[in-house]
Amino acid sequence: MKDIQNLKDERNVDIQKVGIKHLDMPLIVQRKNSTNQVVSAQAKVNVSLPKDYKGTHMSRFVEVLTEWQHKNLLGVDIKGCLEQIIKRLDAQNGEVEFKFKYFIDKESPVTKLKAPMSFDCIFKGLMYDGIYKFVLGVEVPVTTLCPCSKEISENGAHNQRAFIRVRVSYDEDKQVWIEDLIDIVESCASCPVYPLLKRQDEKFVTEKAYSNPKFVEDVLRDVVVMLRNHEIVNEFEVECEAFESIHNHSAWAYQAETK
Amino acid sequence: MKDIQNLKDERNVDIQKVGIKHLDMPLIVQRKNSTNQVVSAQAKVNVSLPKDYKGTHMSRFVEVLTEWQHKNLLGVDIKGCLEQIIKRLDAQNGEVEFKFKYFIDKESPVTKLKAPMSFDCIFKGLMYDGIYKFVLGVEVPVTTLCPCSKEISENGAHNQRAFIRVRVSYDEDKQVWIEDLIDIVESCASCPVYPLLKRQDEKFVTEKAYSNPKFVEDVLRDVVVMLRNHEIVNEFEVECEAFESIHNHSAWAYQAETK
Amino acid sequence: MKDIQNLKDERNVDIQKVGIKHLDMPLIVQRKNSTNQVVSAQAKVNVSLPKDYKGTHMSRFVEVLTEWQHKNLLGVDIKGCLEQIIKRLDAQNGEVEFKFKYFIDKESPVTKLKAPMSFDCIFKGLMYDGIYKFVLGVEVPVTTLCPCSKEISENGAHNQRAFIRVRVSYDEDKQVWIEDLIDIVESCASCPVYPLLKRQDEKFVTEKAYSNPKFVEDVLRDVVVMLRNHEIVNEFEVECEAFESIHNHSAWAYQAETK
Amino acid sequence: MKDIQNLKDERNVDIQKVGIKHLDMPLIVQRKNSTNQVVSAQAKVNVSLPKDYKGTHMSRFVEVLTEWQHKNLLGVDIKGCLEQIIKRLDAQNGEVEFKFKYFIDKESPVTKLKAPMSFDCIFKGLMYDGIYKFVLGVEVPVTTLCPCSKEISENGAHNQRAFIRVRVSYDEDKQVWIEDLIDIVESCASCPVYPLLKRQDEKFVTEKAYSNPKFVEDVLRDVVVMLRNHEIVNEFEVECEAFESIHNHSAWAYQAETK
Repeated sequence: MKDIQNLKDERNVDIQKVGIKHLDMPLIVQRKNSTNQVVSAQAKVNVSLPKDYKGTHMSRFVEVLTEWQHKNLLGVDIKGCLEQIIKRLDAQNGEVEFKFKYFIDKESPVTKLKAPMSFDCIFKGLMYDGIYKFVLGVEVPVTTLCPCSKEISENGAHNQRAFIRVRVSYDEDKQVWIEDLIDIVESCASCPVYPLLKRQDEKFVTEKAYSNPKFVEDVLRDVVVMLRNHEIVNEFEVECEAFESIHNHSAWAYQAETK
Repeated sequence: MKDIQNLKDERNVDIQKVGIKHLDMPLIVQRKNSTNQVVSAQAKVNVSLPKDYKGTHMSRFVEVLTEWQHKNLLGVDIKGCLEQIIKRLDAQNGEVEFKFKYFIDKESPVTKLKAPMSFDCIFKGLMYDGIYKFVLGVEVPVTTLCPCSKEISENGAHNQRAFIRVRVSYDEDKQVWIEDLIDIVESCASCPVYPLLKRQDEKFVTEKAYSNPKFVEDVLRDVVVMLRNHEIVNEFEVECEAFESIHNHSAWAYQAETK
Repeated sequence: MKDIQNLKDERNVDIQKVGIKHLDMPLIVQRKNSTNQVVSAQAKVNVSLPKDYKGTHMSRFVEVLTEWQHKNLLGVDIKGCLEQIIKRLDAQNGEVEFKFKYFIDKESPVTKLKAPMSFDCIFKGLMYDGIYKFVLGVEVPVTTLCPCSKEISENGAHNQRAFIRVRVSYDEDKQVWIEDLIDIVESCASCPVYPLLKRQDEKFVTEKAYSNPKFVEDVLRDVVVMLRNHEIVNEFEVECEAFESIHNHSAWAYQAETK
Repeated sequence: MKDIQNLKDERNVDIQKVGIKHLDMPLIVQRKNSTNQVVSAQAKVNVSLPKDYKGTHMSRFVEVLTEWQHKNLLGVDIKGCLEQIIKRLDAQNGEVEFKFKYFIDKESPVTKLKAPMSFDCIFKGLMYDGIYKFVLGVEVPVTTLCPCSKEISENGAHNQRAFIRVRVSYDEDKQVWIEDLIDIVESCASCPVYPLLKRQDEKFVTEKAYSNPKFVEDVLRDVVVMLRNHEIVNEFEVECEAFESIHNHSAWAYQAETK
């Protein structure tokens, strides 16, 4: 059969990224101090394509990813998957990204009851001119309580669910656990959120949030300071979006820094 | 050209609903005490198809809808559009539904400053065996403040954005305005939400919500009582979903009643 | 601490459904002829609440669901989970629903290469006045090729990805496997879709779809006939939505039948 | 009342972006060779915040945007809105972005029947250190037909709906019309898509796509060549995502260039 993809192309366009998106697949993620966890991931993978070639070979992406569904992943070690993709596609550069919900058994603050809670995570690997970069992303739901509302009101203060999205990079011989990154992020909110709260717990989180008011600016700055001081992280992005309980829109703040 | 759709079908299946979904189109909606408003609607329209026919004629749905984009609609008068669809498709039964964001200039409670706020609305018409039914739907974002959290905590109370979704039916010679239905629904929450709040307004809404705690059950019951007593509405559905600020899941309540 | 939820309510509204939505949790699903599979589920669970009680006890839903995350489920056996919820909430009626992506290793039609492919599934249990009903749902992506386009065109025919969504009910002593339901549904399309196709496979699926043109009406009717003749299924819903490659909207057909 | 936002902050973090997201508002967009069009937009707006200030003043964003809902916009002239935001917030840098569905009356290729079709558009303005940059974005649904499938199959070829997303920048004294950008993009696909097609039209688009096969790589390269040669555009991003009719995942290609 004719290999149309291998035809010569005359348009003089080196393609920066070509590949596949929205491919669902199971992955195995290594947990901190525990056994591994099977997650339901969505993969995006792409390579560069020189101007001489009409097309890439899409099925090879799926072949390589299929092999990797049985590995026990730390995150940063998706380098191996990316190298294999780049080799199989005979490419110069490439990227691979997995998005998935990661479950942690979370303990309520007073009654110490446990229930699973999910966090949207990302493992992303990039290889450009032989240089590897890994990005670990996590999205942490939290509570924020408005300092202005508390200050000016006789009683109460508006509060809401907010999301803190963090992406960090670190060297491939280092390891940041999802669990530890979530702990850092949660410590910067007015209060963490929990899947299971009995009345004593609800009293605790209500009072904790009230005693710890934070704007999205405050949450962002606290996370930024933590990550500036983090020994392993050498590059990060942070955003905080609060689904304001008094509006139908969000308050939002964003920062990206390289050390 | 051969009309494949008109071929005879032998499978003995009278199709209940066949048509098109996710068709974007502009619509003109008549406002209460004001001029009309151009909205960006998404249409879904379908008819029944007797077992003898292989297929319906999809392009006719688009033709009829295209004619109706220039009418000034109250909602209940989409009956005309539905009748035309049923006639053009030579069908027994049919349904038409438009979803759109409807804007209202909303005034902040103390400073009286105005800004536009959108509400997700639905106009739905159904014709079965010649009997017409109209459904008006509106989704209203509000604030709910937890009565339990307030009661058991020394200070503050968790609160959050919630959505109250209402669908009402009424006779075709009557009219319920979107504006009035929103007013009913907002009056049942701990507090309405606003697009624009200055500090005096923020103090007002914080204190109002704190003095007016409501579970999703309370919100639901208050809306149900209002609609049971509504002179024009003869059938309704209500649901309230609160995006709990202390959890990453929602509290939810639902009721459907026919008078 | 005061139990606000147990306060007496005077509004005379028996609430039909109250509970929680959008709770993520892992589940273990039993596979046909294989070991089990860990899936990432989203739960919705609700009960009825008599008019005398101000509120339900939301944390108990999470407690019961947390216990059930470690069971090996067939689907229909979520009856046990539902009974426990109804008992713990002291309710008359209740519903529980789990949505999840289920992975099947799918073999390409000619080269017989395997790769995982996901299907959106639902397990839903309802208990009203002591009568249990179970619903198994699956959403199957397929290819549809237009009979009209093929007939009237000199070459080619427009085709597209379509989704066939099926929900079936059966008695609690019976079992329909997700794998078998997917097989039934795929057999009614112009061609199944696959995660991994080499060139020989691509030739096969292109020619198969071209030789097997189907409107959404055809797909719907074929599935309806299969389910009418299914020995175990006693109630079903089917819909087919085709993301037309020549439009930016969908063609859609729907049927619900009880035997 | 105390202005908490104006308190001094000690954390030494100059915030790069802080503002609001997901604010719905109507906008008026000037059409090419026609009257204006009212669109339903979603706004995102943010400014920089120096390290000395605890918070920004969120309500001022809404005040400025509310004033701009009545202007007749070309796109590039949102510079005025952005300047006002930066002034009112006393900021150094800022960004404003509006996303909206824009309707064009599209004529079927043979029968010349018209119906409205929507395109997701973006107007984005950025001001950093006094330098203004405008980005016009449009997402165009099209048909792509696979060259490989056509070549290797005896009959037919798989085809599908695809999206071509383009973002272009140009100087503020120039003007690129949404209508013209859509024309460029559509000319690079196997065939445009249409809201309304009668049988003669369906024959035309089926045969046109079959005679004009394109990979996502081909579509991308053709758009890149057109934009490299565009007299006004000085920077662009292009991506093409095809919802493969033979898979449940997408083929995807991406390019960004500055002239």
